[in-house]
Amino acid sequence: MLSVIMAGGSGQRFWPRSRQRHPKQLINLTGQGSMISVTVERMRAFSRPEEIIILTNVTQAEAIARDVDGEVPRENIIGEPVGRNTAPSIGLAAVLIERRFGDKPFMVLPADHLVSDLDIFERSVRQAEAFARDNDSLLTFGITPTRPETGYGYIRAGETLSDTDGVSLFRADSFHEKPSIEKAREFLGSGDFFWNSGMFLWRPRVILEAIQTHLPDLDSMLLELAQRLGTESIDDVLKSIYGDAPKVSIDYGVMEKADNVVVVRGDFYWNDVGSWESIREMFSKDKNGNVLVGDHIVVDGKGNTVFSPDRLVGVVGLEDVVVVDSGDAILVAKRDRVQQVRDVVEALKRDGKDHLT
Amino acid sequence: MLSVIMAGGSGQRFWPRSRQRHPKQLINLTGQGSMISVTVERMRAFSRPEEIIILTNVTQAEAIARDVDGEVPRENIIGEPVGRNTAPSIGLAAVLIERRFGDKPFMVLPADHLVSDLDIFERSVRQAEAFARDNDSLLTFGITPTRPETGYGYIRAGETLSDTDGVSLFRADSFHEKPSIEKAREFLGSGDFFWNSGMFLWRPRVILEAIQTHLPDLDSMLLELAQRLGTESIDDVLKSIYGDAPKVSIDYGVMEKADNVVVVRGDFYWNDVGSWESIREMFSKDKNGNVLVGDHIVVDGKGNTVFSPDRLVGVVGLEDVVVVDSGDAILVAKRDRVQQVRDVVEALKRDGKDHLT
Repeated sequence: MLSVIMAGGSGQRFWPRSRQRHPKQLINLTGQGSMISVTVERMRAFSRPEEIIILTNVTQAEAIARDVDGEVPRENIIGEPVGRNTAPSIGLAAVLIERRFGDKPFMVLPADHLVSDLDIFERSVRQAEAFARDNDSLLTFGITPTRPETGYGYIRAGETLSDTDGVSLFRADSFHEKPSIEKAREFLGSGDFFWNSGMFLWRPRVILEAIQTHLPDLDSMLLELAQRLGTESIDDVLKSIYGDAPKVSIDYGVMEKADNVVVVRGDFYWNDVGSWESIREMFSKDKNGNVLVGDHIVVDGKGNTVFSPDRLVGVVGLEDVVVVDSGDAILVAKRDRVQQVRDVVEALKRDGKDHLT
Repeated sequence: MLSVIMAGGSGQRFWPRSRQRHPKQLINLTGQGSMISVTVERMRAFSRPEEIIILTNVTQAEAIARDVDGEVPRENIIGEPVGRNTAPSIGLAAVLIERRFGDKPFMVLPADHLVSDLDIFERSVRQAEAFARDNDSLLTFGITPTRPETGYGYIRAGETLSDTDGVSLFRADSFHEKPSIEKAREFLGSGDFFWNSGMFLWRPRVILEAIQTHLPDLDSMLLELAQRLGTESIDDVLKSIYGDAPKVSIDYGVMEKADNVVVVRGDFYWNDVGSWESIREMFSKDKNGNVLVGDHIVVDGKGNTVFSPDRLVGVVGLEDVVVVDSGDAILVAKRDRVQQVRDVVEALKRDGKDHLT
C-alpha cells in the first residue's frame, strides 16, 4: 500500500512553537519526535520508504526533507509551488502513484494529527485496504466519537457493508459541518455519527474518476500534468500549471458529492491537534488537573497547561491558563481563549516582527 | 556627608530574577541599572566615592563590588560574616565613620528602594543634614502617604521643629506597625502619619550613645570592635566578634525607645520595592492597564504585568496576571498572589534545584 502524507499546514495555532518556517508538523509535541516523523513511522507498518509520498509546499520541502532524512527518499517529497487545498494535492498524488506503481491503493493522511491504539489503527487500515482493492469505493475514516465535540465535522454512516476482524465498513449517508453543542450531543447519542478525520483510502483510478466527474477543471490540469511528466521534471510542470488548479478541499469537491463513499469505523484514539487546548488530553494530569510538560512548580493552581521543555515555569494562584515557551517567545493565555493566539501572530506581523511569526 | 548603604537582602520575592547569589539589589528593574548602582548614584549628590560605605553580607560582597566597580572603593564594601539585622550594621558603620571621618553626619538607606522626584529628595536630605549637624537628634525620613497602604509601618509626627526650604521636621510622637486597612485610612486622613522608610540621618556619636543607652550588649561589641581595629583587619575582627551582636533592628532596638527622634517629612516618591506587584506603579500603563517592560503583545488582556526584557511574551485573554522571565525560569502568577512566589522558591529547594533559587 502507498501512503500519501499531507504536510501543507502553517500552524499559527501553535505559536510560539510553530512558525512560518517551522510549522506544526515539524514540532515535537509528544516527546517522541516531530509530528511528521511520528506519522511516517506509523505508516511504515504498511509502506516501504519508497512507497511513502509527502506533499508539502515548496518553502517547507527542504525542512521536511531534513526532518525525515533516511526515512523517505528525497524525490518522494513534493513541494507545491502554491497551496490549492486538498483536492489538487490528492489528484497530483494519484497521478504520480498511477504512473509509478499502477492502480495500487493509497492512504491519504495529514502529517499533523495524532493517533494512538496503533493495533486497532493497523487492523482498520488493513481492512480498508483490502476493501479498496476489490471495490471502486472512496473510503474515509470516521472516528467513533467519545464526547460531544463541536470542533469537528461528522459523517453519518448508513448500511453496513462489512464487519471483519472487528472493523466495520458502512455506506456513507451524509456529511455534516461542525455542529452546535446540542447537535453534537444528539450525534454522540445516536451512534451513527463519526468524526470526519481527513484520512482516506482508495485506488488512483477511483479517485481520478471521481475528480473527472465532480471537478472537471482539476481533471484537465491533472491530464496535462500526466502528459508533461513524460518529458519534464515534476517541479517544472507544477510551477507551470499547478496554480491553475481550483482551490477546493477533497471533502467539499468530491466526498460530499460522490455516491461511492464508504466509512471505515475507527475505534482508535485520534486527535487533529487543533490547538494547545486540544492536546491536553494526550498528557497525564496532576491531582489538580495541571498538565506539566517539563519540570515545573505549581502553587495553588488548577487546570493549567505548561509546555516548556527547557525552562522551569513557576505558576502561582492561577486557573485554566496555558503557558508555552519556545526559547525566543512565551505564550501565556486563558485556555478557552487560546485560539486567539492567531491575533498575536497577526500583531507581530503588523509590528514588523516577522522573525517571531 | 557620609552615605551608608545597607545591601543585605536576599530577595526571594523577586524570583526568578533575584536569586540567592543575585539578590534584589543587583537586579536592574527600572532599566537604569542595578538597584544598588542607582542608589549609589543618588547619594553621589552628597558624598564623594570614598564617603560611601556599603554594608552587605560576606557572600554578596564580591558581586556588589563588581557591580559598583569604579563608583565605590573596594575597601568601603564591608561584608558581614553573619546577618544580625540593622542595629549592629548601623553601629558598625558609626564606628568606622567616627574613626575615619570624625563626628560627621551620615545617612543610612537601603540599597533596594526606589526614589524619584530627586530635587525634593535632595532638598530634604540637605535640611536633615544641617539639622543633624547642629542637634543631637536621630533623624528618620517619613514619607507623606498617598494611599491607605497596609504594607508599611507608620510614624506619627508631633510638634514641628523647623520648616525650611519646603522641608518640615517634626518631633516623632510614636511608631506604628503595619496597620489594618481601616487604620491605614484613618492614618491617611489625619495628615500626622508618615510611612517609615528605613532611611535615617545622624552623627556617629549620637547613634552610638543611643545604642549605649538602649542596646548595651551591642555597645560592648562595638567598643571591642573599635579597639581591635587599631591592630587587626576589619574582616578578622568581624569574623571573631560580629556573631555575638544581638539580632535586632534599629527601629525596634533604638528608634521606638529613644526620645530624641526627629521625623523629616519626605514629599518625594518612594517605594520599598517589596514585590513584583509594588513596582507596577513605577511604570506607565497601556490603555488597558497593562504594564509591559519589554516588547510584548496583549490580546484581550487587562491589568497584566510583564517583565521580560529579552523575550517577547504574548498574553491572550488574561486579567491581573504577572509574567516574569529571567532566562532560565519563568514566573506566571495572579497579581494578588505574587507574594507566594516564596513557595515556588521553597519547592525548588525541596526538589534539589538549588541552581534556580
